[in-house]
Amino acid sequence: MPVSKLEYNLIHRACVGDILTRAAWRFPERVAVKDGDVSLTFKELNERANRLGDALLNLGLAHQDRVGIMSLNSWEFLVSYFACAKAGFVAVPINLGLKGPEITYCLKDAQAKALIVDAMFAQMITPVLKELEDIEHIIWYGAEQPMSDGGNIFNRLLKEGDPAEVEQVVEDRDIVQLLYTSGTTSHPKGVLTSHVAVTITSLSSALTLKLDEKDTVLAVLPLFHCAQLNAITLPALLVGATTILQKSFDAKQVSVALERERVTMTALLPMMYAALQAESTAQKRDFSSMRLAIYAMAPMPRTRIKEIQDLFPNANILLGSGQTELTPPTTFQRPHHQWVKAASWGAATPSVQIGIMDDEGNLLPRGETGEIVYRSPQAMEGYLNLPGPTEETFKHGWLHSGDVGYIDEEGVVWFTDRKKDMIKTGGENVASIEVERRLMEHPAVQEAAVVGLPHPRWGEAVTGVVILKPDQSANEEELIAFCKETLAGFKVPKRIEVVTEFPRTGTGKIRKHRLREQLKDLYTQEIPNR
Amino acid sequence: MPVSKLEYNLIHRACVGDILTRAAWRFPERVAVKDGDVSLTFKELNERANRLGDALLNLGLAHQDRVGIMSLNSWEFLVSYFACAKAGFVAVPINLGLKGPEITYCLKDAQAKALIVDAMFAQMITPVLKELEDIEHIIWYGAEQPMSDGGNIFNRLLKEGDPAEVEQVVEDRDIVQLLYTSGTTSHPKGVLTSHVAVTITSLSSALTLKLDEKDTVLAVLPLFHCAQLNAITLPALLVGATTILQKSFDAKQVSVALERERVTMTALLPMMYAALQAESTAQKRDFSSMRLAIYAMAPMPRTRIKEIQDLFPNANILLGSGQTELTPPTTFQRPHHQWVKAASWGAATPSVQIGIMDDEGNLLPRGETGEIVYRSPQAMEGYLNLPGPTEETFKHGWLHSGDVGYIDEEGVVWFTDRKKDMIKTGGENVASIEVERRLMEHPAVQEAAVVGLPHPRWGEAVTGVVILKPDQSANEEELIAFCKETLAGFKVPKRIEVVTEFPRTGTGKIRKHRLREQLKDLYTQEIPNR
Repeated sequence: MPVSKLEYNLIHRACVGDILTRAAWRFPERVAVKDGDVSLTFKELNERANRLGDALLNLGLAHQDRVGIMSLNSWEFLVSYFACAKAGFVAVPINLGLKGPEITYCLKDAQAKALIVDAMFAQMITPVLKELEDIEHIIWYGAEQPMSDGGNIFNRLLKEGDPAEVEQVVEDRDIVQLLYTSGTTSHPKGVLTSHVAVTITSLSSALTLKLDEKDTVLAVLPLFHCAQLNAITLPALLVGATTILQKSFDAKQVSVALERERVTMTALLPMMYAALQAESTAQKRDFSSMRLAIYAMAPMPRTRIKEIQDLFPNANILLGSGQTELTPPTTFQRPHHQWVKAASWGAATPSVQIGIMDDEGNLLPRGETGEIVYRSPQAMEGYLNLPGPTEETFKHGWLHSGDVGYIDEEGVVWFTDRKKDMIKTGGENVASIEVERRLMEHPAVQEAAVVGLPHPRWGEAVTGVVILKPDQSANEEELIAFCKETLAGFKVPKRIEVVTEFPRTGTGKIRKHRLREQLKDLYTQEIPNR
Repeated sequence: MPVSKLEYNLIHRACVGDILTRAAWRFPERVAVKDGDVSLTFKELNERANRLGDALLNLGLAHQDRVGIMSLNSWEFLVSYFACAKAGFVAVPINLGLKGPEITYCLKDAQAKALIVDAMFAQMITPVLKELEDIEHIIWYGAEQPMSDGGNIFNRLLKEGDPAEVEQVVEDRDIVQLLYTSGTTSHPKGVLTSHVAVTITSLSSALTLKLDEKDTVLAVLPLFHCAQLNAITLPALLVGATTILQKSFDAKQVSVALERERVTMTALLPMMYAALQAESTAQKRDFSSMRLAIYAMAPMPRTRIKEIQDLFPNANILLGSGQTELTPPTTFQRPHHQWVKAASWGAATPSVQIGIMDDEGNLLPRGETGEIVYRSPQAMEGYLNLPGPTEETFKHGWLHSGDVGYIDEEGVVWFTDRKKDMIKTGGENVASIEVERRLMEHPAVQEAAVVGLPHPRWGEAVTGVVILKPDQSANEEELIAFCKETLAGFKVPKRIEVVTEFPRTGTGKIRKHRLREQLKDLYTQEIPNR
């Protein structure tokens, strides 16, 4: 009898839903996830994902329809994500750090057909529902769901759905997730990521982190972000490790969880580690189970790493980096980088090829600085509805990151700056980040942004913009002198403006292009030979 | 500018050639492979693969053309395999344990356009070349190449080819390798395996074995076999580990290599470990670097494992299993299985789902015995030129292994017998392997095969066929009595034949179907109620 398309597909495909299916078949009785009082085995988590997937199919959702997910870290998030993966829908986890209008933009852009949403967001989402014309199903969950909308529809769907494996054709290059980058210069961009990309990322990250079923992983950073979702939580589920979910960062709760659950691995932001440390000096805790403390965002100085090492004496403290377009992780510091290359991004994972490219599309040799570009099966398929930016990102046959940096002799990546934030002044390149770092060292400075502004003589002039600490003062002259102490002359800001606030994105990033726009005439009165 | 098909492909694909490319970019100066006096860094190995790939394209070979490789373990084998992967050809490594006519059959069946061959096989292959009408290029390598054919063409191609990355469109589901199963009942069957299957297998095996760039792996089993190639050597190259190649098993040489190279991992057959042990008692060696001693074929008794543990005090001694159709490994024993479940196959790897199925296509619960079936992105695309057997293998939406076994509560797989060797006698199922194992315990028995033969009363009658040790004797009655001591009555052979040789395949496996054919009338004279 000929093999049907579905039969062939079920045997061969690289489907993200099968990550959970296989874990449930390998470790049915192991605890997959703990979320407050709820504890689910792999078998239970898998059956709930099957039930929801089946119920969504019964609602009439079709292959590759998009399903919004508005959820803090919760078992419902994971069930929703895997239900979509198994049934062939596209999960669209919403970044809850975005403002209301941006969330509306994402859901409209995605043409989401259904929205799975924690009732705690009812006040935020209900007013904009009428704008979201594509949404046919609102699936509330949580304790405080508006009963007018039929109560806890999520739980009802779980009851109605079949716990048997959802068996739908899902192709390797079908889309499994659509995540929006926060975008400092424009609307958020929707990143379309395939099943095979997430499958390979999960394996590659688990391999790099040496995860296995004996690990217990604390998930604090939000699952709606690619770093937590793709670099940490999916790899943990893949190997049969237990995930402990936290709704948000609370130093006390995280400390308690780390100790009580004998957590072996977590990923936090630098400021979270600082808060943990403060909490831990108040109450001595046993963190001896921790073997890996990952941090994100940017390298930490060695003094900070030393402090975290004191907190977690048995752990490596390592930076992981990545970007939504390449499904993180892209690079990880390895244990031998912790002290000697703490300021680097570490090395590429086994499934990522990293090049350094000049503006003409030529690859540069090791040690030279240029744009960081990638080839990897982890690459996004493209931006949704944005053929222009997609083509721009894929030009010269490499995925362009917009990051500038270099690779050293050992294959370690050193990030210099975002490409659009590099300043070209009098023929020299200046990384805005380097100058910002110096300004931040001044005791009066709370936050600093450095931009290049049009200048009749220098092309661009290095320009500082700072917010001072509430009880501190410093004038322009003094700050410039402070920079001159350690920076080369051409890196020293020509002017420094003191302001009280920055233009920011919904997630709090400084919109430097707005700053540049606001200050664009700062030097137009300058005489070219000044 | 629109992104070309090639540009898109280079960024996204899961191509096996990129395993080497990425390793070379990550660890250019690390030693990838040592082959006798030749030592190649990842950069050198990669450049040679690029050179050969480019040269083969220049010879006119086209996308998915098949290239035979006749080679013992050698750097030339690896260069050839990766050259094919990068250029989009299909590598056809030839099992050198096969007889001449079988090798001819494989190359003809594959319609190989080119043959890369060690000149040491000139005497074997030259006489049959005229039969291989599809072969357009014979590429000799090695010291003793027949000069009449243009000398060491392999080295000439390496000189002519471009060391820059070969950039050809290679799709995820293009075929990267065509390996022939030895087949006890028919001609060898060609197994077509895709790039994405081998990519995922390499990641999954490296993850299971916790390989990293600090490992040194001794490759003794032949690279033309999927176990060494896909489960060990590609994962080692993927993570940047060093591979030490051995042309064949020589206890002395292997011992010297293990000690001198500070080898951390190897995979051998049980009898090889026994030989190592004998060698090592003669000369005390330092094997303290060994952390993982893998073995293949079948579980070893604990007494044997204990002896190997004494040899490698710091190593886990673990069985890995798999089959060409699923790209090994399928299961691996984990460290905690070494003593308590030594007789099992261990557990599935993270990318393999294992079911147990009855003859009607129903999955059976844990603990029940049936055919072992798989779903995994590691699955073959199908058998070459054999739509019937391919459909049969993929029926009910699972890949059928032909193996019978069960899965215990912990998810560990226990192999019972090959399905076609199970005997149905008087309503009971008997695993031929269990009876063979008992017969082999008799001091006079050198080798035993147990088959089911047609019997008027029992349906099939359990029947033993044995070869005795040269200086030993034992009669049928005595052997039957010996079986009765430990086996249930229905498992005891009704008859035992003593023979001097078995019908065998090219690789030495007993052809049980021939035995059944030869002995099919053994019981036809029996009276039904005997």
